[in-house]
Amino acid sequence: MEFKLSEGVAVIERTPSVLRAMLGGLSPEWTERDEGPETWSPFVIVGHLIHGERTDWISRAQIILAQGSDRRFTPYDRLAQFHESAGKSLDALLDEFASLRRQNLAVLADWRLTADQLELTGEHPEFGQVTLHQLLATWVTHDLGHIAQIARVMAKQYRTAIGPWRAYLPIVDR
Amino acid sequence: MEFKLSEGVAVIERTPSVLRAMLGGLSPEWTERDEGPETWSPFVIVGHLIHGERTDWISRAQIILAQGSDRRFTPYDRLAQFHESAGKSLDALLDEFASLRRQNLAVLADWRLTADQLELTGEHPEFGQVTLHQLLATWVTHDLGHIAQIARVMAKQYRTAIGPWRAYLPIVDR
Repeated sequence: MEFKLSEGVAVIERTPSVLRAMLGGLSPEWTERDEGPETWSPFVIVGHLIHGERTDWISRAQIILAQGSDRRFTPYDRLAQFHESAGKSLDALLDEFASLRRQNLAVLADWRLTADQLELTGEHPEFGQVTLHQLLATWVTHDLGHIAQIARVMAKQYRTAIGPWRAYLPIVDR
Repeated sequence: MEFKLSEGVAVIERTPSVLRAMLGGLSPEWTERDEGPETWSPFVIVGHLIHGERTDWISRAQIILAQGSDRRFTPYDRLAQFHESAGKSLDALLDEFASLRRQNLAVLADWRLTADQLELTGEHPEFGQVTLHQLLATWVTHDLGHIAQIARVMAKQYRTAIGPWRAYLPIVDR
């Protein structure tokens, strides 16, 4: 499936309501457990998504669109949420994410990107040259990956509780 | 994490709104593509969840609670949705699922299950003896597994569009 801006936006504009439906008001038994050492709970994942809204997608798109002499992206901090989310409730994080996502989608809409602009490039610190459409498709895929991760982290909490059905539910062992 | 009825219900009562947030009104580009031969699209998955509401969870719980001489479950038809969903729109399926889930949760609540009842057993056609709490924990885990699957199926549609980011997004190759 090729990237089309309107179809990509249709997915990322839903993510705040998906996260709220999955996690809003849910007990910490579900939202603060992870998959073991060095893994993330749903609470941590929402903080990670917030950090992306603040520092990644739109900032990188701006670097590409400016087409300056230095188009190199700032490396992404995958651990920022451990201090940025400290002391906050999950419901507060869900609100913060929804608000940032709404602002970012408004910026994106205002750009009225053309097909030519979607092929402009920036420099990823590791991959080298990447296009704006690849960046925006990654924004969509990154959301979906973390939605799947949240469902998996929650499912794993019942790995033992489901007894023999574990054989039919590979998600608890992934 | 041990199974607690209230915590399990807190997850499965959210699933209709999670599915609606993810899929309601979304184009068939997203909802009708799958992962290849013998795999399921989001549309097919929602039909599968509907079939579970009609024939699986509550029906099996009733067999267990009745404690009759024959406590063997009817095998689950994993392909029923291919004819049952035929000709329906995804939005109609989402409504149907929400309605059935609401009815089933009302039945479950009316039972006011005790800790002793949660340890009663039925006979799974393949696994043999299983408890009511294992069945109910599986209902929860099964929902979460299919939510993760829907996100994965959608993410995979951008496997090519994300370019080199594929290296960072294992969900598109799972």
